[in-house]
Amino acid sequence: MFEAAEVGRKLSKEAYKTRVPEVRATLLAAQQQLRGANVPVIVVFAGVDGAGKGETVNLLNEWMDPRWIVTRAFGEPSDEERERPEQWRFWRELPPRGRIGLFLSSWYSRPVIDRAYRRTSRVEFEDQLRRRAEFEKTLADDGALILKFWMHLDKEAQRKRLKALERNRLTRWRVTKLQWKHWNMYDRFIDAGEQAIRSTSTAQAPWMIVEGRDEEYRSITVAEALREAIERRLAQPVPPPLAKPAAKRSETPKQPPSIAAPTVLSRLDMSKRIEKRAFERELLKYQGELNALQRRAARAKLSTILVFEGADAAGKGGAIRRVTGALDARDYQVIPIAAPTDEERAHHYLWRFWRHLPRAGRVTIFDRSWYGRVLVERVEGFATPAEWMRAYAEINQFEDRLVGHPIVLVKYWIHVTQDEQLRRFKAREKSPFKSWKITDEDWRNRTKWDAYDQAVNDMVERTSTRNRPWTLVEGNDKYYARIKVLQIACEALRKAL
Amino acid sequence: MFEAAEVGRKLSKEAYKTRVPEVRATLLAAQQQLRGANVPVIVVFAGVDGAGKGETVNLLNEWMDPRWIVTRAFGEPSDEERERPEQWRFWRELPPRGRIGLFLSSWYSRPVIDRAYRRTSRVEFEDQLRRRAEFEKTLADDGALILKFWMHLDKEAQRKRLKALERNRLTRWRVTKLQWKHWNMYDRFIDAGEQAIRSTSTAQAPWMIVEGRDEEYRSITVAEALREAIERRLAQPVPPPLAKPAAKRSETPKQPPSIAAPTVLSRLDMSKRIEKRAFERELLKYQGELNALQRRAARAKLSTILVFEGADAAGKGGAIRRVTGALDARDYQVIPIAAPTDEERAHHYLWRFWRHLPRAGRVTIFDRSWYGRVLVERVEGFATPAEWMRAYAEINQFEDRLVGHPIVLVKYWIHVTQDEQLRRFKAREKSPFKSWKITDEDWRNRTKWDAYDQAVNDMVERTSTRNRPWTLVEGNDKYYARIKVLQIACEALRKAL
Repeated sequence: MFEAAEVGRKLSKEAYKTRVPEVRATLLAAQQQLRGANVPVIVVFAGVDGAGKGETVNLLNEWMDPRWIVTRAFGEPSDEERERPEQWRFWRELPPRGRIGLFLSSWYSRPVIDRAYRRTSRVEFEDQLRRRAEFEKTLADDGALILKFWMHLDKEAQRKRLKALERNRLTRWRVTKLQWKHWNMYDRFIDAGEQAIRSTSTAQAPWMIVEGRDEEYRSITVAEALREAIERRLAQPVPPPLAKPAAKRSETPKQPPSIAAPTVLSRLDMSKRIEKRAFERELLKYQGELNALQRRAARAKLSTILVFEGADAAGKGGAIRRVTGALDARDYQVIPIAAPTDEERAHHYLWRFWRHLPRAGRVTIFDRSWYGRVLVERVEGFATPAEWMRAYAEINQFEDRLVGHPIVLVKYWIHVTQDEQLRRFKAREKSPFKSWKITDEDWRNRTKWDAYDQAVNDMVERTSTRNRPWTLVEGNDKYYARIKVLQIACEALRKAL
Repeated sequence: MFEAAEVGRKLSKEAYKTRVPEVRATLLAAQQQLRGANVPVIVVFAGVDGAGKGETVNLLNEWMDPRWIVTRAFGEPSDEERERPEQWRFWRELPPRGRIGLFLSSWYSRPVIDRAYRRTSRVEFEDQLRRRAEFEKTLADDGALILKFWMHLDKEAQRKRLKALERNRLTRWRVTKLQWKHWNMYDRFIDAGEQAIRSTSTAQAPWMIVEGRDEEYRSITVAEALREAIERRLAQPVPPPLAKPAAKRSETPKQPPSIAAPTVLSRLDMSKRIEKRAFERELLKYQGELNALQRRAARAKLSTILVFEGADAAGKGGAIRRVTGALDARDYQVIPIAAPTDEERAHHYLWRFWRHLPRAGRVTIFDRSWYGRVLVERVEGFATPAEWMRAYAEINQFEDRLVGHPIVLVKYWIHVTQDEQLRRFKAREKSPFKSWKITDEDWRNRTKWDAYDQAVNDMVERTSTRNRPWTLVEGNDKYYARIKVLQIACEALRKAL
């Protein structure tokens, strides 16, 4: 695979000097254009030690306006990073739209090293690569431009390069025993690199192999490739900059034809209820149990995420308060999902959820969640059909990262019937301290009941799996719903501990 | 001091039941009103173990809408927190405007414990308290509502309370050997608490001592105090919600009369220059030196902050690139300061700088900085005179936290004369890849030259101290300026290592 990068490609000093001014000017111009566009650029550098990864990144910082570049390298994870799924540290450093992120020692670094050292099997390695390809696809589907450079040297060229670095007083520090150890493992690193490139080179996130021996050649090659890719990307029709979704929409976009088959919600027994006395007894019992379980989870460093979805007035807030009432205030956070902030809008829609993942042993409660993509955004037309349709796969992958960490993930859909919702809306309007809860939008949403019904049905069908199932809660009776929520949370924690 | 909180204040169960509905309704209403207002609320809970801090926080989460409450407790700092000045972890958790932050084990926790254990002297403790009072003043001046509750029990009541907790199966876990050890140190904790309350009770951030023995009494007392404080605060004229500052202002606000005395800038020898040959030699020399010094600093976990300020076209960008060219891309971040994001606008203006402080051993380069408050915001009238005048003290305190960590802090003002700026503007307009750098605003800013001159003079006078001085860089000759910038950075690192 790397033969073409071992032919000794060179650029003479004179040719380099002649080309640099134009290369810089056009690259800078591309960067300027990018700033106004709705596209984040992600550039990954990987490859052989001494092949010029760091130098190239420094050069790009010099040639472009460094204020709009985010340069990141990932060393040992911090403890805050270790306490979350592996991808968390990469998500937190992604560039927002309009900026360029240059990544040294990226998400490929650890898997390639582990494979070279034979800490992972070929199958495990392949699995890690698949997850990385999924990660990149998720970003690219959202409009990110992704470029990956493998900077290559043949074994002999690497030896010479390390020797040259050692001779120079200013670069000697860069060559340690580890570099020589890796040089001795050259073939293994190359094998792992080949497999990585083969498995993760996609049209959306291609690898480019760059011969690293000649500084002038590799500098111009990378800069030109980056400029071209930006220009090509900006010439394509890009999704319009994400405006804040209009708060009020008078027209509902066309919905899929309503289905004859019963939806999952229509099969719920909505008459389920329990008496107040029984409720009070059960509440104490399950809150006590949840408290004890969460303390064990905290000691075991096991994190929990509770997701609450449901129609307006379904009783999410009340159910959440019965959960938090059982927890130590030091242990949990409630994250209400309303309109995204502008920082959040400048990233992939999942970014705002990644940033709130709990530290080890803590509980994060999402009051509404990433499922907004396939619920309100689908029904209201804030997301295009292509966007919400691919969201099921994105969400499944995201949740796989969570449960794989492992994090205990519990997802509740609290359901009420249309009649019960109407009764609650009217009661709220009359209540002195609940009337603020009811807005015109709530009334409008009621007119889309069937569309929501269909969306919930599709959501449950496509995102309920054995290890992260949806819990459908019959919510017409608040007592019943609250007890069921607590009960399921206890069960999930008990099973995980 | 605590006698008044040992008299056995009680509220009967019946009286409590009667009052709760109204207390909850009015508290919730106050919270709702707050959401639309420009005020963050910070509530600190401190006091005796077992006096009901955690219970009260849980109750407030139940009585109010928990989605707009941020509950935080600070245990052992994470390594990311330890790598920054102590206040960093508190800044990162501050509630944005419109929300309520409830803090258990807040910024008072560590100092009080250290003092009780006699790990700090009375003088050191006093110094820690002074810094906390400054921190709160900074937030309160910006419009934050701050309430601090000291939950009190006398020694015998605490003993009974701990015993009662131990008897209950659900709360037994909360009483460990540590709680009994602290009970034995009761007098020391009370002494430290007294000193803390005396030293940090201000009109803007008062302490309230609450007798913690009776659950009903303390719940109603805290809830009512919080509601009253919110209502009182919202009745006051508050600063209008921070809109994005108008990008274009046709009128300059009135400026202070121009001064006869020469400003610091007028005393610079602007003819300083060096030849290209000498520049190239010195550049290599100082970049090499900076590279070596930064590697030592990284090993020593010593962080560095470089601040670049200067007029438009003064050459900040070019100077920054000569610095970053000497550094390993893994080690630095350039933070360009442009318009704040909406998350940043929802916090104190210093918040956006706190969030970018470097991890241990890294370098953060601010391209423009917190000095915007006393430069552009002052001159353009984006900040009121009261705001920018108190900013000098706020900035001095902020930087004291940085250098005290310690972080190496270097501040550059790169100066050009009016003529030289004009020449550069014209050259930029003609250059194919620099014309984007020049906007109408740049031309407009030129008309305010004297006002900026005065603002820079005041800034240097009021924020240049021996351990964090301003470096004024004669920038008419770019070669000279860039070498001086590198030289000073090397000197600062050398001195610190």
